[in-house]
Amino acid sequence: MWFASDNTSPAAPEVMAAVLRANQGHAMSYGADAAMARVTERVREVFEAPEAAVYLVPTGTAANALALACLCPPWATIYCHRTSHVEEDECGAPEFYTGGAKLTLIDGANGRIAPDGLRDALAFTARAGVHNVQRGAVSLTNATEAGTVYSPEDVARLSAIAREYHLPVHMDGSRFANALAFLGCTSAELTWRAGVDVLSLGGTKNGCMGVEAVVLFDPARAWEFELRRKRGGHLFSKHRFLSAQMESYLCDGLWRTLAGQANARARQLSEGIASLPGAKLVHPTEANAVFAAWPRAGHRAARAAGAQYYLWPGHQTLEGPDDEPLSARLVCNWSTTEAEVEGFLNVLRAGATAPEPARP
Amino acid sequence: MWFASDNTSPAAPEVMAAVLRANQGHAMSYGADAAMARVTERVREVFEAPEAAVYLVPTGTAANALALACLCPPWATIYCHRTSHVEEDECGAPEFYTGGAKLTLIDGANGRIAPDGLRDALAFTARAGVHNVQRGAVSLTNATEAGTVYSPEDVARLSAIAREYHLPVHMDGSRFANALAFLGCTSAELTWRAGVDVLSLGGTKNGCMGVEAVVLFDPARAWEFELRRKRGGHLFSKHRFLSAQMESYLCDGLWRTLAGQANARARQLSEGIASLPGAKLVHPTEANAVFAAWPRAGHRAARAAGAQYYLWPGHQTLEGPDDEPLSARLVCNWSTTEAEVEGFLNVLRAGATAPEPARP
Amino acid sequence: MWFASDNTSPAAPEVMAAVLRANQGHAMSYGADAAMARVTERVREVFEAPEAAVYLVPTGTAANALALACLCPPWATIYCHRTSHVEEDECGAPEFYTGGAKLTLIDGANGRIAPDGLRDALAFTARAGVHNVQRGAVSLTNATEAGTVYSPEDVARLSAIAREYHLPVHMDGSRFANALAFLGCTSAELTWRAGVDVLSLGGTKNGCMGVEAVVLFDPARAWEFELRRKRGGHLFSKHRFLSAQMESYLCDGLWRTLAGQANARARQLSEGIASLPGAKLVHPTEANAVFAAWPRAGHRAARAAGAQYYLWPGHQTLEGPDDEPLSARLVCNWSTTEAEVEGFLNVLRAGATAPEPARP
Amino acid sequence: MWFASDNTSPAAPEVMAAVLRANQGHAMSYGADAAMARVTERVREVFEAPEAAVYLVPTGTAANALALACLCPPWATIYCHRTSHVEEDECGAPEFYTGGAKLTLIDGANGRIAPDGLRDALAFTARAGVHNVQRGAVSLTNATEAGTVYSPEDVARLSAIAREYHLPVHMDGSRFANALAFLGCTSAELTWRAGVDVLSLGGTKNGCMGVEAVVLFDPARAWEFELRRKRGGHLFSKHRFLSAQMESYLCDGLWRTLAGQANARARQLSEGIASLPGAKLVHPTEANAVFAAWPRAGHRAARAAGAQYYLWPGHQTLEGPDDEPLSARLVCNWSTTEAEVEGFLNVLRAGATAPEPARP
Repeated sequence: MWFASDNTSPAAPEVMAAVLRANQGHAMSYGADAAMARVTERVREVFEAPEAAVYLVPTGTAANALALACLCPPWATIYCHRTSHVEEDECGAPEFYTGGAKLTLIDGANGRIAPDGLRDALAFTARAGVHNVQRGAVSLTNATEAGTVYSPEDVARLSAIAREYHLPVHMDGSRFANALAFLGCTSAELTWRAGVDVLSLGGTKNGCMGVEAVVLFDPARAWEFELRRKRGGHLFSKHRFLSAQMESYLCDGLWRTLAGQANARARQLSEGIASLPGAKLVHPTEANAVFAAWPRAGHRAARAAGAQYYLWPGHQTLEGPDDEPLSARLVCNWSTTEAEVEGFLNVLRAGATAPEPARP
Repeated sequence: MWFASDNTSPAAPEVMAAVLRANQGHAMSYGADAAMARVTERVREVFEAPEAAVYLVPTGTAANALALACLCPPWATIYCHRTSHVEEDECGAPEFYTGGAKLTLIDGANGRIAPDGLRDALAFTARAGVHNVQRGAVSLTNATEAGTVYSPEDVARLSAIAREYHLPVHMDGSRFANALAFLGCTSAELTWRAGVDVLSLGGTKNGCMGVEAVVLFDPARAWEFELRRKRGGHLFSKHRFLSAQMESYLCDGLWRTLAGQANARARQLSEGIASLPGAKLVHPTEANAVFAAWPRAGHRAARAAGAQYYLWPGHQTLEGPDDEPLSARLVCNWSTTEAEVEGFLNVLRAGATAPEPARP
Repeated sequence: MWFASDNTSPAAPEVMAAVLRANQGHAMSYGADAAMARVTERVREVFEAPEAAVYLVPTGTAANALALACLCPPWATIYCHRTSHVEEDECGAPEFYTGGAKLTLIDGANGRIAPDGLRDALAFTARAGVHNVQRGAVSLTNATEAGTVYSPEDVARLSAIAREYHLPVHMDGSRFANALAFLGCTSAELTWRAGVDVLSLGGTKNGCMGVEAVVLFDPARAWEFELRRKRGGHLFSKHRFLSAQMESYLCDGLWRTLAGQANARARQLSEGIASLPGAKLVHPTEANAVFAAWPRAGHRAARAAGAQYYLWPGHQTLEGPDDEPLSARLVCNWSTTEAEVEGFLNVLRAGATAPEPARP
Repeated sequence: MWFASDNTSPAAPEVMAAVLRANQGHAMSYGADAAMARVTERVREVFEAPEAAVYLVPTGTAANALALACLCPPWATIYCHRTSHVEEDECGAPEFYTGGAKLTLIDGANGRIAPDGLRDALAFTARAGVHNVQRGAVSLTNATEAGTVYSPEDVARLSAIAREYHLPVHMDGSRFANALAFLGCTSAELTWRAGVDVLSLGGTKNGCMGVEAVVLFDPARAWEFELRRKRGGHLFSKHRFLSAQMESYLCDGLWRTLAGQANARARQLSEGIASLPGAKLVHPTEANAVFAAWPRAGHRAARAAGAQYYLWPGHQTLEGPDDEPLSARLVCNWSTTEAEVEGFLNVLRAGATAPEPARP
């Protein structure tokens, strides 16, 4: 019962098999391997973007920070959701890679940037000219950190606001496949057709060992990206092992299949929890994470049964009245099984109705 | 006949097997995996350094740049050999990670920093106080970029000079195992006992997929290193795959075995070339790279036979008189076979004696 | 009727005379001038801080950014008021000089950081360890951007919170003399005795041409400051002209006298406005700036009479109903005269009662 | 007898008078003062460059570092003379402002970059593509650090080489007026007509208190420059005092007059020294600095007489044989008098012939 994060999960067998196959004889290093050429072709095809530049890096933080550094000068600011990964979980990587840009935090329900909040923040920025940092880039996370998804229309609405100020749009797609699987739209519809300029396309959380693609729909800054990647220490010598992961990930829709599995388990989990007495969802469950609250007794039972997940926000504690609801984040992944979810729900159901153990 | 670089080679079967084994079920992310604890223990044991802090990163550039950033403030300079990887092959990664430090280039025969050169450079630095960049750190590459090796005495001599100025010493050990295998000394003798403070311990070039360890013999800056690693995008979520590589690499002396194989092939190659008419070594062959010159006719024959290696320096060309010697770099790796080397030497021998083909 | 900013004002005659006197013959450059030694002595005496390191720079932005860079590493965050100069008016200078630190914005009435807001922000920071930026430093602005003042007790309360997390405290004292003049306390009481580690002591806005002192009460980072200052291009060769300004500024309490004059004019202005029909203060008037609102008709009259000041916030406009109140910022300076303020108030009084001009 | 540096000299009376005049009433801040508009016009006129963008900063280090940051990305290198100010005397300011660019040091006699040296360095750079830092910008110092001057033809020759690689050319003109005064050419001939893109135009060393202009002949990066200046803390609030200095400096050819005086004194000094027994020039004397060697006895006499100058290079000492020549740098400035030089020469002449004092 591992729901702590999708990054504790193993790699998918197809990905591991591809990595093994890649380990034959010599291969050109630093991205000149034949598999990388195929990855680029495949990404262009999937995204209907024949000009796109495609690069691989090992982590989502690297993908985001390198992408943003190509979009936002040091004296500007990046507009992102207050709870976004670039703000909360990267120890200042965007600030480091940009050379000291700011992040301007926008609120919005369920992890999605509120269009009015973006508009207000943009209008406020640079009102005193040279004295202020300037407008740099907009960064959207899809799927969001709240387990929800921006639709193509949502993205287009925010991109249009960015465009009023001639700003580029970055999408942190660490869980892009989960968003796609929920929406059922095409990759193009959710990215460049909706105004996205650069995508961080996640593989790691969804069945790879450690690989993310950065897709620059406009290749004008491709060379700059390559230099920044090298300078950041993210250009792999034995690059074939990155290529192999991404190639297998995109082959025959594996990425969407895996994400679909994770989303389905999250839905199962979400519906199960929502039906518990005293429980309710904190955010709608759209991608592979469930944010829900239920009485403390259920959390105690889950913890006792060895379930792994985070109380969210983190300051809550298992000490206290049984019936007080505590909120939690539970993340499913490609390898989560129906039985695992059902077992967890059974623990909760039992815990909810169990008589409180006598205390000494 | 691949002698272009050791980073075109495959990963060793033991390493791949360990990676596969690591892909079982869930594992804690971000370095909290059980295998990482074992890696730390193993490194401490191998280096007889029970206090050392040990971290894994995916590339040598990351290892070097992160290590140097912990040793050298932005307003100081790093003393390194003119041909070192940190100067020549990292697109300014040390400058980026340190926040704008300088590199001061020291000459010295066969890729080794000349002690007098280091002494002069140190004396020259900061002679005008606040107007100059300050003395920061000394970085040694072992094995060197010229295929040679610093002995423990060589390292101790340079470290002692650094110590006169209270400077820390970094060792770029991207081919550390090759140096060890040549010297037959212990890891401790070649590092902290000789004055090295931080080691970049290479795995990628010598049989891993992509992993390097950074060993801080003094753990005082360990937390700073962790923050810099995360901020640089080098903290792996599915860290177990880095741990598995390094664990198997250090298990039962695999790293020294693999490096010994590569060195032996380089020796075979070196001796074979040296016995050719008109040939001579450019640098002594100590680790796994051969720097040698032989007549152009031999190069033409090798190229025709499909051999992969670089003319070194790169401005030389196959056009020109047959008997003019051209210098080259040939790198062996753990997977290079005796037969492969012998085959290459045979091509050279034949090429050297072959009548020049008639030209139209 | 110039109330746009205190930085449009001329330099005080005493300061100009000192600059002229300094222009005799040769003087040692780069801070080795005899006058600088006297400045250091004088600052130590005034602040009762015999160990303090004292440096001069030409702008407040340089003073703040250099000071903060000595206190906050690149991977940490600076806690400051949402409206502080370091956040709003320095085009990211703190981010640049620190190498990419964040600023965490705290709210609080009347430009003063709310202790609870600081406490909450500190507790929230770094809750996920290495994934988050760390706690760096607290920066207080005194007098604040809202024309109010932190008392020694206010400063001590916030410093104590910072101390719970072992954080250093910076004071942006661009208008420090105005705060002192309002409070009537000693310089020591308002700084190190209340927990301040580094002070940016402003001269420019209060009668100098362009000079700010940075006072490091703990000299441990003095050499680092010197290197950062040089590297930032802020070490003056003809340093005597900075020294002369600061020496005369601190001589015979000139700085407090000038600030007292500015404060008195602000009080006069504030009381005059507050007595107008339909007017009210936005913030209490403590230092040399008045934040007040009064009916639009009065603003129109003031503008027509050539008065210089900003509507605050800036999106307000003179177009609209006469009696709707608009808020404004008016800044007095050492050279503002009683007659100038009285003249301005008369314009407002007349404007408030004047019949609206007929519109075509 | 102050020959230590031109930056120990006072400001010219015309400049001080202008600063005093500027201190009348209120003036718009941050470069919006009326005098700055006149400075821009004047610079454009003097340089026959009607489109040029012109900015003022307080120090030469700021001027150089900001200019270079606009020309050279973080992953590139700046080609400069090994003894240039940007390399030797700015504590890494170019590295700081560019975000971590390198400096590639070119040799060349008498402080001038050797064209072949530049050509070789350019050819060597970036030979391994993404692995190397890229070509960034060429920086020339005119007058040089060796007291010599690049002619328009010299500049054009080096610029042409830069142009082959599409590189911009920066001129560090901290002593530009001295170069002009020596050459007798126009400002345009020595800058944009010879291929210079950005000029740091010095005022401080030649009669100002502390002001340098940055002239961007192509204004495309003007806004970037403004943001970098602000972010670096170099935008003056009471900017009028910078404007006043520069306006008076450029008025009626004052800058060329002052530089001509300094050059004439250097010539007088140079000729006097060259005629001493056992003396010789180290570099030709073209601008306002003399590099010469003469017997130690003369240095002892000079030191005893209170003369201020540096032995150059700095490791030489007054202890040793009387007749051994020691080399020195002597810098004249606008205020150096004929009598001062003559007095110094007399000391040397006397010292050269004086019997060595008996030693106990």
